[in-house]
Amino acid sequence: MPQYLAPLTDFEFLYNDWLDLNSHYLAINAEGMDSELALEVLNQGAKFAQDAVSPLNREGDEIGCKLIDGKVITPNGFASAYQEYIANGWNAMLGNPDFDGQDLPYSMAVPVHEMLNSANLSWRLTSMLTESAVLAVNKHATDKLKEQYLAKLISGEWTGTMNLTEPQAGTDLSLLSTKAIPQQDGSYAITGSKIFISSGDHDWTNNIVHLVLARLPDAPKGVKGISLFLVPKFILDDDNEPGEANTLSVGSIEKKMGLKGSPTCVMNYDSAKGWLIGDENQGLACMFTMMNDARFQVGMQGLGTCEASYQGALKYARERLQSRSPSGPKQTDAKADAILHQPDVRKMLLTQKAFTEGLRALSLLYAQQMDIEKFCKDYRQQQAQQIIAFLTPIFKGFATDIATEVCNLGIQIYGGHGYVREWGMEQLVRDTRIAQLYEGTNGIQAADLIGRKLTRDGGLMLNATVEMLSARINGMTNKKQLEQAQLLLHEWHQTSCQLMGLDNVDVAGAATDYLHYSAYVLLGILWLEMADAAKGSSNSLIKAGKMRTCEFYLKRILPRKDTHKSALLTSADDLMSIDDQEFDYI
Amino acid sequence: MPQYLAPLTDFEFLYNDWLDLNSHYLAINAEGMDSELALEVLNQGAKFAQDAVSPLNREGDEIGCKLIDGKVITPNGFASAYQEYIANGWNAMLGNPDFDGQDLPYSMAVPVHEMLNSANLSWRLTSMLTESAVLAVNKHATDKLKEQYLAKLISGEWTGTMNLTEPQAGTDLSLLSTKAIPQQDGSYAITGSKIFISSGDHDWTNNIVHLVLARLPDAPKGVKGISLFLVPKFILDDDNEPGEANTLSVGSIEKKMGLKGSPTCVMNYDSAKGWLIGDENQGLACMFTMMNDARFQVGMQGLGTCEASYQGALKYARERLQSRSPSGPKQTDAKADAILHQPDVRKMLLTQKAFTEGLRALSLLYAQQMDIEKFCKDYRQQQAQQIIAFLTPIFKGFATDIATEVCNLGIQIYGGHGYVREWGMEQLVRDTRIAQLYEGTNGIQAADLIGRKLTRDGGLMLNATVEMLSARINGMTNKKQLEQAQLLLHEWHQTSCQLMGLDNVDVAGAATDYLHYSAYVLLGILWLEMADAAKGSSNSLIKAGKMRTCEFYLKRILPRKDTHKSALLTSADDLMSIDDQEFDYI
Repeated sequence: MPQYLAPLTDFEFLYNDWLDLNSHYLAINAEGMDSELALEVLNQGAKFAQDAVSPLNREGDEIGCKLIDGKVITPNGFASAYQEYIANGWNAMLGNPDFDGQDLPYSMAVPVHEMLNSANLSWRLTSMLTESAVLAVNKHATDKLKEQYLAKLISGEWTGTMNLTEPQAGTDLSLLSTKAIPQQDGSYAITGSKIFISSGDHDWTNNIVHLVLARLPDAPKGVKGISLFLVPKFILDDDNEPGEANTLSVGSIEKKMGLKGSPTCVMNYDSAKGWLIGDENQGLACMFTMMNDARFQVGMQGLGTCEASYQGALKYARERLQSRSPSGPKQTDAKADAILHQPDVRKMLLTQKAFTEGLRALSLLYAQQMDIEKFCKDYRQQQAQQIIAFLTPIFKGFATDIATEVCNLGIQIYGGHGYVREWGMEQLVRDTRIAQLYEGTNGIQAADLIGRKLTRDGGLMLNATVEMLSARINGMTNKKQLEQAQLLLHEWHQTSCQLMGLDNVDVAGAATDYLHYSAYVLLGILWLEMADAAKGSSNSLIKAGKMRTCEFYLKRILPRKDTHKSALLTSADDLMSIDDQEFDYI
Repeated sequence: MPQYLAPLTDFEFLYNDWLDLNSHYLAINAEGMDSELALEVLNQGAKFAQDAVSPLNREGDEIGCKLIDGKVITPNGFASAYQEYIANGWNAMLGNPDFDGQDLPYSMAVPVHEMLNSANLSWRLTSMLTESAVLAVNKHATDKLKEQYLAKLISGEWTGTMNLTEPQAGTDLSLLSTKAIPQQDGSYAITGSKIFISSGDHDWTNNIVHLVLARLPDAPKGVKGISLFLVPKFILDDDNEPGEANTLSVGSIEKKMGLKGSPTCVMNYDSAKGWLIGDENQGLACMFTMMNDARFQVGMQGLGTCEASYQGALKYARERLQSRSPSGPKQTDAKADAILHQPDVRKMLLTQKAFTEGLRALSLLYAQQMDIEKFCKDYRQQQAQQIIAFLTPIFKGFATDIATEVCNLGIQIYGGHGYVREWGMEQLVRDTRIAQLYEGTNGIQAADLIGRKLTRDGGLMLNATVEMLSARINGMTNKKQLEQAQLLLHEWHQTSCQLMGLDNVDVAGAATDYLHYSAYVLLGILWLEMADAAKGSSNSLIKAGKMRTCEFYLKRILPRKDTHKSALLTSADDLMSIDDQEFDYI
């Protein structure tokens, strides 16, 4: 597997020439923050990702996790890399300063997270979920619970998990049956079995904090009767140190397609001691503070694997000598030309590049809105919340669907070697595949986008997003590209509005096409913006690379939007009219 | 993993209502052959695939192959299932009757091969390659070699392998360096290392027959200096029984993404004794007798995994209860409806179904041409050869690209469970992924189609294919569907002709888009034909299922052709103008 190298030059371009980070920090009054500091953070993050995390990736896949005497053993080196990670404060980047967090902007942390995902998806997942858990505890837990748990979750001394799924309740949480019985001491006795719990146990820390959805005895049926509980692996003693073991255990760990360095646990709670987070029966809303962050982060996993696959494939395409270029020999002193000179290989590489850099821009646009939401206490905060809500399912669904495509192209460019494990390209396909499934399958993302986000309050979230984009592209200097971007934005807005009148069934049938359609348009706009911004770059590779990749995207990728558009504006009759028995003839 | 059930009803429909097998057998003078016999063969094949082969699939993936003391050990049960396979004559279905082959039509054998691929891709690969090797030996070897080897290869008592690839020579066989030195006894001493040799060793038979490409000492450079040799694992004694061990060995077996039940070997030849097949320096042409058959068979692997994934996903979608249908509750006595009632899930299932059944029809159309090529000694033979040559890269490239899409949808329908190995859905993704790579990557298939097949002799192969399809659709009874099919065929023909004028580089840039464009059109025509034929079916599920799936294909899948069409008619300038250094900025 090729050594991962963080794409620092692209980040620098995005910060300085595209996002204009300094103006952004001024606008949100982020004191002491500037592009120079941000790039220094990224430089340090790159070193850690490259030197400490990436080298563990390939072996971690081969070794996997083991469950021995009820305890999870993670692959060699994972725990010590994590100790280094938290010792250097990386886990605390975004945390609440009242609990020793660094309170940095998302625009600084998100690129570091991308790097960690590129370097080692399995290793990164534990800290990713902890960060998301921190948000739920920070927002919804009592002061006492925060006092006990928050600083240690922010530092990473303890990790957090998300416990939703049960064997009979995945997408449909109304079927959830784990019970919570109130105890005299104010705690609750949690009993039930949860599946697919990432990092449900591990050998990294001396405590693990589970956030668990369960039902109170008198709770209403369905999703309105679900409450959220904090259930530690070890109950805290009077000094708030891990004491007695809680009555919870790991039933088994899953044998998976990939992500083998990450333990996916069946968790059994047997009257385990837990404490309520948020109000009774408000558990789903509280958990969604964690879930929404995790959805964005899962999209980041998609982006991270795209970059890793592209790096590997590009390196191989430059080195692998086979046949001659159809435009005539390029390396006349060698027996053959590098396969980079084959138009079909270039097309695959440019597809990887266009998606990877496009998704990176989208992740930073998202991060910018997260900064605004975090630091602005005026009208902009609400606007940013609306934009974030709208972009979350698009980013999660699209970045992860595309990652499967991009990583498969990585295999394809390697030819037969791509299928062999030691080269690492197939691991990326196996690892990234989970991202289309967890934190809500991409079908659920699409349903969320079209069924809830698009139509809520007459399209407020869509309109906020369109306004934000409109303002951005108005700053473009090239008239032709500006007009192309405006046209795309207008088409997207119009098409979106047309969908609001559809009935439930048609909406459900159009959901995935709408998500993909939206994302292709969005990336088109971002590519036009990037090409425009790159004209001013002093880096000639950026200048040409961005311009030509934009051209490629518009010509060869963007037309895909029309297939989706044609499908989403028709009814779902064809999907519904086929009888259940007519799907097969056996 | 759900029990595999062969799609016998669909085959019956295709045989009787769509292909009109009896008329076909009459037309080619295939004595004693009729649809009744064919269905009986399929019935027996289905039993074997279901009962003997399918149950080995999941465990075979977990156990994998081992190399112990230089010998390959295959998973439990694989060898004995193979013994049953050859004892019952399955290996000899297509073989030359002069060497105890059954000389059956392809239209009978191809569906059985589909079933074996659905049941267990790893297990099937060994016999698949043997069948392809038989063709090369049958066509090009001396009478003496045929006498010694052919009957045992046809029966399956010995298996065959294909040795092309070397570490430095994959796609580009001109770089091949394995040497063949003539010996006084008329044999050759073969020395070199070959990689990616499927079933290079195993524990199924008492001999293995390697077909190996190598260079004679005085051979011209490049592909014109390659010869083909037959190199047995054990040299035959005077009774033509396996005697002395040849000087060849397994260097290692690859650790792969999937196909773990199939040993992929590094083969080292150390002055191994071999015999020339065909003329000196004509090895590539001889090997392509084997390769072309293998390419079609690899397409069949794609089809086989599509069916397996669809069966699993459909079963799960019918059983998994989550949420309610957006059109109102469907299973009011249950806590939730089956996910089959979700429009998005139906769309995924119909995508799987439309591709699987469409590719099955294409495979039988291809088999029909193979029958003509095999049994007709008049002008029709050449026509069939042209059609086969044109369809081979389309079928190989498209069926295997689509299999990756279809099998990934299978995972997606299972949600998180799709990522867990025991359910078998992710194994199909891992197993089928190789099919896009071996026997020529799909980029090579596309280059072959557009660069050699399309333009050769002014488009003879295209024209033969168009004429055959034109004659077929003229038999359709529904006027509207007939017109739609004619329109598609006309568009395809026109677009193809437009491409013939392009220069080398543009052709190379358009190759993959042309392959996909052609396949989407072709499947559209076949779906229209099937819908037309289904009107006369006495099976109401077939009647409705085919009609509605055709409607779905035309509405939601066929529009993809336009994205490819828009890309292939433009120049490759955008691919070539980006400088090699501008692909990244590091």
